[in-house]
Amino acid sequence: MAKEIPQILKGFRDYLPQEQLARKKIMQKISEVFERFGFAPMDTPALEYYELLGGKYGEEGEQLMYKFEDQGGRKVAMRYDLTVPMARFVASYPELPKPFKRYQMAPVWRADKPQKGRYREFMQCDVDIIGSDSIIADAEVIATFDAAFKSLEIGEVKVKFNDRKLVDQVLTKLNIVKKDIGNFMRTLDKLDKIGEEKVVESLVEQGFDRNILKKYSQLMEKSSKGYVNQMTQLLSGLGVEQMEFDKYLMRGLVYYTGIVFEFVLVAKPEFGSVCGGGRYDDLLEKTTGVKMPAVGGSIGLDRLFAAIQEMDVVAPQTAAEVIVFNLDENLTADYLNMTTNLRNAGIDAEVVYEPSKLDKQFKYAQAKNMQVAVIFGPDEASARKVTLKNLREKEQRTVDLANLVAEVKSMLW
Amino acid sequence: MAKEIPQILKGFRDYLPQEQLARKKIMQKISEVFERFGFAPMDTPALEYYELLGGKYGEEGEQLMYKFEDQGGRKVAMRYDLTVPMARFVASYPELPKPFKRYQMAPVWRADKPQKGRYREFMQCDVDIIGSDSIIADAEVIATFDAAFKSLEIGEVKVKFNDRKLVDQVLTKLNIVKKDIGNFMRTLDKLDKIGEEKVVESLVEQGFDRNILKKYSQLMEKSSKGYVNQMTQLLSGLGVEQMEFDKYLMRGLVYYTGIVFEFVLVAKPEFGSVCGGGRYDDLLEKTTGVKMPAVGGSIGLDRLFAAIQEMDVVAPQTAAEVIVFNLDENLTADYLNMTTNLRNAGIDAEVVYEPSKLDKQFKYAQAKNMQVAVIFGPDEASARKVTLKNLREKEQRTVDLANLVAEVKSMLW
Repeated sequence: MAKEIPQILKGFRDYLPQEQLARKKIMQKISEVFERFGFAPMDTPALEYYELLGGKYGEEGEQLMYKFEDQGGRKVAMRYDLTVPMARFVASYPELPKPFKRYQMAPVWRADKPQKGRYREFMQCDVDIIGSDSIIADAEVIATFDAAFKSLEIGEVKVKFNDRKLVDQVLTKLNIVKKDIGNFMRTLDKLDKIGEEKVVESLVEQGFDRNILKKYSQLMEKSSKGYVNQMTQLLSGLGVEQMEFDKYLMRGLVYYTGIVFEFVLVAKPEFGSVCGGGRYDDLLEKTTGVKMPAVGGSIGLDRLFAAIQEMDVVAPQTAAEVIVFNLDENLTADYLNMTTNLRNAGIDAEVVYEPSKLDKQFKYAQAKNMQVAVIFGPDEASARKVTLKNLREKEQRTVDLANLVAEVKSMLW
Repeated sequence: MAKEIPQILKGFRDYLPQEQLARKKIMQKISEVFERFGFAPMDTPALEYYELLGGKYGEEGEQLMYKFEDQGGRKVAMRYDLTVPMARFVASYPELPKPFKRYQMAPVWRADKPQKGRYREFMQCDVDIIGSDSIIADAEVIATFDAAFKSLEIGEVKVKFNDRKLVDQVLTKLNIVKKDIGNFMRTLDKLDKIGEEKVVESLVEQGFDRNILKKYSQLMEKSSKGYVNQMTQLLSGLGVEQMEFDKYLMRGLVYYTGIVFEFVLVAKPEFGSVCGGGRYDDLLEKTTGVKMPAVGGSIGLDRLFAAIQEMDVVAPQTAAEVIVFNLDENLTADYLNMTTNLRNAGIDAEVVYEPSKLDKQFKYAQAKNMQVAVIFGPDEASARKVTLKNLREKEQRTVDLANLVAEVKSMLW
């Protein structure tokens, strides 16, 4: 029989109730903070014209994008990220007041090689400010993510930032020509992983001066002072406590034009960046023909969720707190009434549909991690009493049926 | 320039912030009720092996399903509904305690002819109980949806129900042979729309006896009494107030095996059924080889949302309640502090990034439907005062800067 069970697609996954309850809670907390910072939710379709998405994500994107011809012969593609569809969105509704502050939590699809923690469908959680080139907007995007992480109570987070304009200026001063800047940045971006020595080696191999890294470092230190002071003040004014200028931080080299940033969990640095972003003032024009400055970022919800699971800060979840056992078919009306009364009092409650051995019902309740079992048989019925069992502390009490809701509440809260 | 803006795909749509805020609120209320009834959330991928979905939705499904070959040469398809993937899910995790009570809110895709209110991507909102053949489970699915609608405060809802087993029995008694039962049901299902006379005509054309409808009606009345009594009592025990046995209700003829039901909004009958479902005891075995009884249903979230928009019961939505105006670049630190204090008090607040004409800032605040503007210029700064303007009632007051948060709260709540 087992081999008849159809398989889930390679690189995809299901979310079981326990995980999904925890994920939902995390997403809800994050979205509350986003709204507190004035970002409004919006959504775009899972499918777009391939014409829109094609050529926007480099060669890799071209290979990994799910694309096909639809029933009308249109070339379409599944959403590869949330940024390019958002650019189309902003261009399509010119009446949206600017700056347009939006957030979006939605899955994207990439036919990437599946490996531990990397899936072909994953949630992105983006915040963007479109239509402002203010440095306050830069700081606010960072402050929004910072507050979102704080709301999750997962310990300290730290944001590292740099500015691509500063980097450009310094490299120009060092007489590095435009066409080499990309390679230089890509090499420096590896410093965290491979160390200074290997970066220098790699730079020399590429034909750069052996002292170029030292010179870059010194010049960045000097040139960045004013900027770092200003950004630190803005961030601190917006409630961010831990920030660090990182002159080696470069991030996705393609479209950033100003600030770039990354968040790390102080207690779990091994998870790397759980959020990153930056300013991308040219992307909207390239994508839609509408010139508009923009800054934003994205939480990698799946990586964050994996880290949170390891941190053991999410309590075990259950959908139902209370279970009304079914001991006698003739008492069905009572069971339904009790269940309905509990639910009307805002308590998550289940009722067992068919009378069965008490043992079996206890097993079900434990498997679902429920808290209180309501036991009501013919004896209790004639005495108008009900037995309540705390399934976690194994303690039980018998109370008046009329006090059911109040007694259950006192056991839950 | 306009013609450079890429288009949204035909039959798809964007959700603008106002709509998305309202949709989010509706979905949240519904999911709270689902959890109160003991249903747990779960999720499955957007893509599945075509092998799983193909042949499960009849000829129409075959034509409307988005299917393609992925990078690995697999035949895949986008989720066409939530039921078949759920069947795979249940079969894949035999350790899930039974009955498995789940809900799922997720988009599905069908390349249907786009028309008013019908899109190629739409949200389904399903509740199912897998692994119980109890009639209480039937009643509970209905009671769950009923409570969900009540939580939305959209006026009275009524559930109509019928039972396919009853119908089968009656038709057999009427000597209608198995192969004609489908046609008979499909014709009767139209009674609501085309009326009794036309139904009789159509039945006669198909070769049925001219009195068949009358006979069916009489025999159903008689045969259903016990069932209707029992179901009415169960529903009422679970808090359902308005229910009606409808002997002509048939619904999607393919896989239902027992109860079938539909909800209508009493104030908006023209929207038709906003929710429907039934028992489908054979589907899991057909789909996965694992035999398991099941009952469930689905809210058509988009139709419901359209009805709600017409009913004018959803208040205008905004992401940010308060806006801190920017009148002077030198006061940036004050603006950020004020904004941060408001946010820390749980108030949704925005700050304007660049100083500009007051007029322009008011226009932005109005376009975003904000409630309170915080006005703080050099005069206010030296007096340590701040002016608060209620943007809806056009009334304003000047208060001590130290009382900002308390004063704003008093204006909002």
